[in-house]
Amino acid sequence: MFNVVIVRYGEIGTKSRQTRRWFESILMNNIREALVSEGIGFKKVEAKHGRILVKTNKARDAVDVLGRVFGIVSLSPAMEVDAELEKINRTALKLFRRKKRELGLERPRFRVTGRRITKEFPLKSPEVQAKVGEYILENEESEVNLHEYDIEIGVELMEGKAYVFVDKIYAWGGLPIGTQGKVVALLSGGIDSPVAAFLMMKRGVEVIPVHIYMGEKTLEKVRRIWNQLKKYNYGGKGELIVVKPKERERIIEKLREMKKEKYTCVFCKYMMVKHADRVAREFGAKGIVMGDSLGQVASQTLENMYIVSQATDLPIYRPLIGMDKEEIVSIAKKIGTFELSTLPEDEIPFIPKHPVIRGSWEEFRKIYKAVFGEEPRKRQC
Amino acid sequence: MFNVVIVRYGEIGTKSRQTRRWFESILMNNIREALVSEGIGFKKVEAKHGRILVKTNKARDAVDVLGRVFGIVSLSPAMEVDAELEKINRTALKLFRRKKRELGLERPRFRVTGRRITKEFPLKSPEVQAKVGEYILENEESEVNLHEYDIEIGVELMEGKAYVFVDKIYAWGGLPIGTQGKVVALLSGGIDSPVAAFLMMKRGVEVIPVHIYMGEKTLEKVRRIWNQLKKYNYGGKGELIVVKPKERERIIEKLREMKKEKYTCVFCKYMMVKHADRVAREFGAKGIVMGDSLGQVASQTLENMYIVSQATDLPIYRPLIGMDKEEIVSIAKKIGTFELSTLPEDEIPFIPKHPVIRGSWEEFRKIYKAVFGEEPRKRQC
Repeated sequence: MFNVVIVRYGEIGTKSRQTRRWFESILMNNIREALVSEGIGFKKVEAKHGRILVKTNKARDAVDVLGRVFGIVSLSPAMEVDAELEKINRTALKLFRRKKRELGLERPRFRVTGRRITKEFPLKSPEVQAKVGEYILENEESEVNLHEYDIEIGVELMEGKAYVFVDKIYAWGGLPIGTQGKVVALLSGGIDSPVAAFLMMKRGVEVIPVHIYMGEKTLEKVRRIWNQLKKYNYGGKGELIVVKPKERERIIEKLREMKKEKYTCVFCKYMMVKHADRVAREFGAKGIVMGDSLGQVASQTLENMYIVSQATDLPIYRPLIGMDKEEIVSIAKKIGTFELSTLPEDEIPFIPKHPVIRGSWEEFRKIYKAVFGEEPRKRQC
Repeated sequence: MFNVVIVRYGEIGTKSRQTRRWFESILMNNIREALVSEGIGFKKVEAKHGRILVKTNKARDAVDVLGRVFGIVSLSPAMEVDAELEKINRTALKLFRRKKRELGLERPRFRVTGRRITKEFPLKSPEVQAKVGEYILENEESEVNLHEYDIEIGVELMEGKAYVFVDKIYAWGGLPIGTQGKVVALLSGGIDSPVAAFLMMKRGVEVIPVHIYMGEKTLEKVRRIWNQLKKYNYGGKGELIVVKPKERERIIEKLREMKKEKYTCVFCKYMMVKHADRVAREFGAKGIVMGDSLGQVASQTLENMYIVSQATDLPIYRPLIGMDKEEIVSIAKKIGTFELSTLPEDEIPFIPKHPVIRGSWEEFRKIYKAVFGEEPRKRQC
């Protein structure tokens, strides 16, 4: 029935013409990649007058997949017909009847929203609306209501064609992946880090997922989490990178010896960032993403984050820093990582009973020197 | 009518007992500060069994103010009476009638939710619910519906008292201001930076607002924005700090000379962070908050944020980094800063036509050296 999907995008529209074309072309590539990798046939993807048209006979399936492509604000499965009033009317009626059945309404209230995007068509938008509205009223039990309606019939006219639709499905918005460069995302297996990675992906970043090895169970879990996140990663290439830290035993041993077990978590996070920094350099990534939310657990105080941040000169992005746990969980559920994050993981034997809450850089420095025989790096100022 | 407000808080409850007491005492102080500064009389603020009770005859007014105190999840104006069934019944009926009138319903569906928090009261929670429910049914046109209800009557029993209420007003959640230390927030007068500051405040941080002077009009605007944010700042002390940069003319001159005008924005932001860093040191603040949202404007690319981040060894917190403009605007409207952010500001004559999009550190370094005769600081690694 449908033969095209209308793809609407948001923020791109506000950029300069040149930037906009570039954004559109990346978005179109990501759309193609999404459809190809999900096995959804299509004839063409083309940008036209501020929207993208995906010509396909699998419009419903395409909408499901494209709902996960960032940069897209909304989607409508539509019927493309020649821009002739009679054809438009018949198409609108067909879609109206279908929607009426779907909603199970006796006498739905409706409105018609017409947009003449190019001007070849002889009738202006309000006239199109009136004509199509009349035709529906003549043929189906219904009433027009511009403000409170059960069904909205959209008719967009451009280049000799009419696009008729009754559904507008909202997508994630954001920016197309690949428009904003690369960052490394640390994935731990918890609830927060996948949400942080997701939010950066949503803003157009290609994420390179890095996991610091803890054990097989946790690794398996993180693999499954990344596989879930990949469903949003059309346009990105990242495969999970697993780093097996060699120094862990030595650090833990030394901390015990010095009776500074309480620094274990901060040390562990510092080392994670150091590894992430190295990966970032290899891949030309320009930042590190972490799932910190202020005050959520002991290691997420301003003092401890200060120490951890010294492990790199790259900016650390913390998109969850201002969120409550509840908000984070709600996003995790929407994107399908929550359940996976609650799977069992390897027990960590070396977590101290009373981790340091407000770690001191000076103390950390001393411990670091005792472990590695050299000063930790620190920003100069 | 009401003589107490029940204050419920969330995340605090998950901490250790010691931390929890400390959190509660800060939250209670912030509550007192809020009530005193808004001129709302109260007899007592006390923590009891995981909730805080505010004894006041101005419960309605108190709820309005306490809705802006972070750490609070929900509020109920309530009536405290002796825990005797007859008194509970009469109080419940009174509140029920009032609510029924307010909603304008003939035959409201309702349910009673009882909680026996301490166990002196002879009836168990389900029995309390049944008794109060019967009493309402006998005296008022109504019906019980546990799943779909217009009115929920709450009855909480503790220490010989009953707390009866029919409203539960949701607040912002977050953590009490003063539990998480201090950060400097850069306020520019735009839509984003107040939202970023707000989200950090919400997570319990005391924000020190810093504005880099652009002109009188913008300053006046930022003052009004901060005055609005202060309505959420119970427990915080920050007064707006205005920094008048002396080096601006020289930098702009030099950039023009070198034909590097396109670096103006990045340079400007770098200098802002440098000023913020200095203020942070003076006040013992542990981070800097900025309103960056990735890809929103030219200066918010990973490359440019990398350069800007080198101006400090403090972590830069960017709570909006993963948000779309629409989401940011929606928060700004809720917190009352949006309108203020759209007020006129001083024109900035030196904004380049084509600001650099992917600034290079090497190029920035050269310009910096030409301007200041020395290398910019940079993290060591």
